[in-house]
Amino acid sequence: MARLMIRIGFDNGSALGPGKVRLLELVAETGSIRKAAIGMKMSYRRAWLLLQALEAAFGEPLVLTATGGRAGGGASLTALGRLVVDTYRSIETGAAKAVEKKLNILSLRVRGARVTSRSPGGTHRRRKLSI
Amino acid sequence: MARLMIRIGFDNGSALGPGKVRLLELVAETGSIRKAAIGMKMSYRRAWLLLQALEAAFGEPLVLTATGGRAGGGASLTALGRLVVDTYRSIETGAAKAVEKKLNILSLRVRGARVTSRSPGGTHRRRKLSI
Repeated sequence: MARLMIRIGFDNGSALGPGKVRLLELVAETGSIRKAAIGMKMSYRRAWLLLQALEAAFGEPLVLTATGGRAGGGASLTALGRLVVDTYRSIETGAAKAVEKKLNILSLRVRGARVTSRSPGGTHRRRKLSI
Repeated sequence: MARLMIRIGFDNGSALGPGKVRLLELVAETGSIRKAAIGMKMSYRRAWLLLQALEAAFGEPLVLTATGGRAGGGASLTALGRLVVDTYRSIETGAAKAVEKKLNILSLRVRGARVTSRSPGGTHRRRKLSI
């Protein structure tokens, strides 16, 4: 199956895509900007800059850091941070569902495409198409 | 309003996004890879490489060039090229429509957001939100 990657461009010139959203999720999961950066295979500085860009875009923080400084761990998402992550993931799911059939039109034309066929029993099986 | 930018990632590792699709549209509009490249503010070489990547992904050409060589103009889309452009644009429209309300949740939280309100008369007016 093909996969939709969604980036949202806002009127103020800022953008939200899979990278920033995954970073926020990793901050929530690990409780640390440093660990989230490692999970993203990016430098701490880059992760911090991405979070700063988000804060500038939304006008308030999406991540809270405990006393001791940003490098000290103890990071968590603010209510806005959770809203942004949840809404983005929901947009992703909703969009993918809405365009599933059209996406299949393209998937089936791509070289090495696999088609998912539904057997009478309701299970799925995948086979290689020689197109 | 926020704007969805969609990139489609296929199983074979290739991807289709707004850049390649716009390039194909410009080839169709101008009848020339060279003019399409100028319209995209990219080099002829880069445009040609993008079209080659598309051909590799789909296993057949999306652009036909007249005798005289690729630089000689006379380029047009193949049926597959038109299918890819039309399906992508249709995916874009379908996805945007499906997630319009959720997109608004984010748009309204972005700094400098504008909200479109519907007056009783059915016309739209835009105002700045001071969030």
